[in-house]
Order: sequence, then C-alpha cells, then structure tokens
Amino acid sequence: MSALPVTRRAVVLAARANEASAADFALREIPLSAPGPGEVLLENVYLSLDPYMAAYMLGQHPLETAIEARVASRVIASENAALRPGDLVWGFFGWEDYTLLPTSLRDRKGYPVTANKIDPAHWPKGAPLSNALSVLGMPGLTAFAGLVDIAMPRPGETVYVSSAAGALGQIVGQIARIAGCRAVGSAGGPEKVAFVESLGFDSAFDYRASDDLEATLGEHCPDGIDVYFDNVGGATLSAAIAHANTHARFPLCGMISTYGAEATSDVTNLFMTVRKRITMTGFTIYDYYPERMPAFHDTMGGWMRDGRVRYRETIVDGLEATAGAFTDMLTGRHGIGKCLVKLAADPLAGDVDSV
Amino acid sequence: MSALPVTRRAVVLAARANEASAADFALREIPLSAPGPGEVLLENVYLSLDPYMAAYMLGQHPLETAIEARVASRVIASENAALRPGDLVWGFFGWEDYTLLPTSLRDRKGYPVTANKIDPAHWPKGAPLSNALSVLGMPGLTAFAGLVDIAMPRPGETVYVSSAAGALGQIVGQIARIAGCRAVGSAGGPEKVAFVESLGFDSAFDYRASDDLEATLGEHCPDGIDVYFDNVGGATLSAAIAHANTHARFPLCGMISTYGAEATSDVTNLFMTVRKRITMTGFTIYDYYPERMPAFHDTMGGWMRDGRVRYRETIVDGLEATAGAFTDMLTGRHGIGKCLVKLAADPLAGDVDSV
Repeated sequence: MSALPVTRRAVVLAARANEASAADFALREIPLSAPGPGEVLLENVYLSLDPYMAAYMLGQHPLETAIEARVASRVIASENAALRPGDLVWGFFGWEDYTLLPTSLRDRKGYPVTANKIDPAHWPKGAPLSNALSVLGMPGLTAFAGLVDIAMPRPGETVYVSSAAGALGQIVGQIARIAGCRAVGSAGGPEKVAFVESLGFDSAFDYRASDDLEATLGEHCPDGIDVYFDNVGGATLSAAIAHANTHARFPLCGMISTYGAEATSDVTNLFMTVRKRITMTGFTIYDYYPERMPAFHDTMGGWMRDGRVRYRETIVDGLEATAGAFTDMLTGRHGIGKCLVKLAADPLAGDVDSV
Repeated sequence: MSALPVTRRAVVLAARANEASAADFALREIPLSAPGPGEVLLENVYLSLDPYMAAYMLGQHPLETAIEARVASRVIASENAALRPGDLVWGFFGWEDYTLLPTSLRDRKGYPVTANKIDPAHWPKGAPLSNALSVLGMPGLTAFAGLVDIAMPRPGETVYVSSAAGALGQIVGQIARIAGCRAVGSAGGPEKVAFVESLGFDSAFDYRASDDLEATLGEHCPDGIDVYFDNVGGATLSAAIAHANTHARFPLCGMISTYGAEATSDVTNLFMTVRKRITMTGFTIYDYYPERMPAFHDTMGGWMRDGRVRYRETIVDGLEATAGAFTDMLTGRHGIGKCLVKLAADPLAGDVDSV
C-alpha cells in the first residue's frame, strides 16, 4: 500500500453573494490525519453538481468547509470492519479529493451510515463508477420511481418531461418509451434538443426558441399530456396543466425555477387540476432508498445492456474546475446528463454503451 | 289528477354584467305544454345555488333561458315508461317551477338520462328531499369520496377543511371525526364558526378575524396537517401547504377563490410539495357517480340515524328570492350548508335530526 495522503484539498464557500458565483468559492489545502479507530479514508473519484445545491449554499452552507455534495469514492484505508480498502461507496461527502469519514456521523435519517456501499452483486457489469451518481444512482432511481411507481404510465399515453437532456429527463423519456408511451421532451438550446431526439424521444423542442411555451407544448402533444414529470415548476408546470388530459398524473421532484428566487410558483392555472382531475405528487427519493436500489440496479442494468437505456454524463476534470462547472450548470451551459467532476481514475471499466 | 300547469315561471339571465348581480336576473312566465310521447313533467321542489355557477353564468350561460342548476323534483305527469307520477328525481334542470323533460336530452356523459331517479331502496328513511341536493346528493358524495377514497385519513391524523360551515365542509369534518381524526375547520364569521364547533369539530376559527392566515392555521393545527380538503384554493391552499406534514394528501374539489376572477392561483409555495411529498388530487364527483351512490346512501344514512352526522341547509322560499339568495351566497352571507330555494311542499317527511 502506498503512503496515505497527509493533506486534502477542498472547495469551500468563501463568501456569500446574492447568487452562486464562481468568485464565492475558494480552494483550500487542509491537513489530513490517518484514520483512527472506526474511521475510513476515501479517495473521491466523482463529485456531483446539483441544482438544489444553489439554494442550500446561498442560505445555509457554513463558510470555509467543504461544500457538501454527493460523491462516489474508493476506500483507500479503513479502521472500520464494515468497509475494506478497494470498496466503492457513495454518500454525502464534500467537494474535496479525500474524505476522512468519522465514526460518529449519522445520515439525515439518523442511521449510523455515512457511506453507501455499492453492492457488486447488483451493480451492472461494466458500468463506470460515475453511474453511481447518475443513471444508477439517485437521479436514476428518482426517474424510475417517479415514473413507474407514481405516474404509472399506460401504453399509448403521452409522457412529457422538461429538462429532458438533464440528469433525470433523459431517463424518464427512455423509460416512458419502454412503457409503450409517446415521450415528449423540452430542453434549452438546439444541442440538447438534438441529443434528446437521439435518445429516441418521439418529439422534442427548444423552449428557449418558443415565444409561447403553452402553444409550442400543445403542438408537440397533439393528444394532450397524461404524465408530466416536473423538475422545473413555474411557467412550464402551468403549460403542462393547460394541456393535461383528464386524470393526468404529475410527479413533482424539484422546482428549479424557484431555487434561489423569491418564493413563487408562477403557476397561474392550478384551478384546472380540479376539472381535469389531475394528481400532482411531490416526492423525494428518500422514500424509495435504499430498499428499492438492488432491484432497480437489476432492472436498469438489463435495459442498459440491451441498449434500451443510454445515458450521457457531463464530466469535467479536476477540483479546480468545480466552481466554474457548477455556475455553468446553473445557467444551463452544462446541461446534458448529470454534471460531475472527475478527480481520479475510474476504478470500474466503463464499457457500457455511451451515446 | 289535478289539471296540469299551462305556464312555467323561470329565472333567466337577462343581462351579463362583470359580476353576478341580482339585477342581471329576471323572472319570466313561459307557456308550458303537456308532455308528449316520451316526455316527463316535473314539479321542482328545491333549486340548488352553487358557487361554480357564477363562473359559468358570467361567461357562457345563454341569455333568456332558465338558469341551469341542480334541482330536486317530483314527477307530476309522464309519457315515459321509466318514470311514473310521484317518482322523485334530481338532475340538471333549471331555476323554474316546472320543467318539461324532452326525450332527446342526454347527460354530459352521453347517456339518455336527464332525471336521476331517487332509489327508495337506499334512500334513508325520513330524510327530506332537500338532502338529495346536499348531504345525500353530490355534495355529500363529494365529501365522502374526496376524504375516504382519495385522502384515506388514518386515526390520529389532522384533517383541515376550509368553508367548514358550507355544503361540503360540515360533512368532511364529521366524517374525519368518525375516522378517528382531529377535525379543524375555518369559516367566515363567528356564527359559522360556532356552528362548526357545534358539529363536533375539534377546532375552528374565523379566517376573517385573522390578519395572518398562515399563523392562525398553525395555532389550530399544532401537529401539522395530514389532510387538507380544499374547495377554496389561493391563499388558503398556500397556508395549508405551509403547515402540511410529510406525505399529506390534498383532495382539491373546487377553487372558489379563482371563480370569476382573473386566472390565478395565488399559491406561492407550490415548491414545498416536493420536500413534503404532498399529493394534491383534483377530482370531480362524476368519477364516482352514479356507481357509488347506493352504498353511500346506506353508509351516510346509518351515520345520520346514529346522530354521527348532522346537517344544516340554508333554505329560502320562492322563486322570487332566488337571484338575491344566489348573490348573497357568493358574498358569503348565506354560508351554512347547502343553499337551496324551496318552491313546493317537500313530499318526504323531514324527521331527520336538524342541528
């Protein structure tokens, strides 16, 4: 075993401006001790950049500590019987190259678990570790549970998803196709729209090129909308309500249009949910995790093997690029698939079809 | 058999102002012929006044025809084998004293049925015919289906209902109590609040006396809200979202705050539905009618007999009073129970407990 690192480098919030800006972040070098009894040392391989983090960081994230985020990692030293060197894990660690997991940390449900070990028995063969933060991680399970468990689409129905090129959207559309539905997606800009079309969506449009979102959506959903998978809220949700069919189901998993802004939904036609008998169901993935993960890995792994689900991530290299990539993501510049930062060689062979 | 009437008197919309006003209505006397083959002549006993009618009438109701509304009636002459003199029915007839049902009319689902015959086998003994438009009619079934079928309340949960003294609200709260829940209601003015309390609600408040609806609601729901039965929308819905517990269920059956106004929901915190995993389900009673009515009559009849559900209606007398009662209802002056106009003697003995 090579010598353990004696420092870690972390991206911290150095200032709190009105909007998340790369200038608010700083890279710090911090001494790192070897794991004591019960502790585990992780080499972080992929960091996740997520839109929800903007709201969190603006208001609550402590200054001068590593930004909390989902991270996929490899155990490099362990004084804890639950994890051995070489094990792969993901968890809420931080934007840093190494993480020393203390023994006392508990997750947000209070369980004494900070690292979620990736189970080789169910992990699809050949999938890269980055997938643990995307199609085989919480975004994938969110898309699956929201569409399959909550919306329960039936063959022939129309499923519309916004941010269709994003971490969730591309999975939602492909599962909708597998379910026999017509999949319609919207995204910002021609590159993303072309990508969505390449995934096999039946129809896709650039919402930025429309001066009447509701009319454009109607053109792409001539038979109305039976399922709208919402991760945007606001005017997009209003447009979907306007075109919803009777008994439409709307899983709601995030409203990016409201993050960091004044609390407003901008939904102007909620009264239509009555006559149309729309069910809107807010959900977060913690109602499905970890119980559903093994079976989900089996199902999704099969679809990936068969080429029925393809997945593209946006991966930037190096801790230095993190803050810039994050603000780029918030403005929509990085918008194809999950946005990740790669810090070390992927320990899994990545021979899954890439798009 | 006495001679059949040769004229009918009808309340019509004579003008279309910006808001429903009594001055827009007029009483007309119109010749009435005896029923021809297949036709049925009804004596209308009770007319229903409903908030939704305001929006409909403002925009779409044809001028100079009887206002379409739910009516409970007695058959006085029939040339149709399906109905005999003395049968009791309800249906979408009109604000008029007699209605000649043509043979060709179909209901909104396309069935050749315009009169819904009241089934004596399931009608609770002793209930007055007015109940066919209130606790034993569509408002009652709406309260029942929305609470029992959609919200599925569990013992110990908190159920909040707005317009708690209204046609639906008083039933929702009493069923919530039967289900073992804490029932909380809001209403406009001390008289209505006292009435709600007299029905056995655990807590009730006057929303007009509050200068901070959200704070007041929180005081009355110290354990949060598990079920909010919404028939108001707008700021009340926002306040309920703010106090909702995880996995709260919100049946939505009407948004009176948006009727007749610019299309706006005024809901400013819809994004909270995600983190709180709230399910909001718009519904109308046509998904449950007529299939559920016989069993509903059996269940509700039992509760009424046992005194577990009491019901108060607001009944005004005579066709001349209709327009004024309608506008009074819209401004909240008539707000205890279903608002009805009585045109003739009730053919059923009304010995059910009244409040």
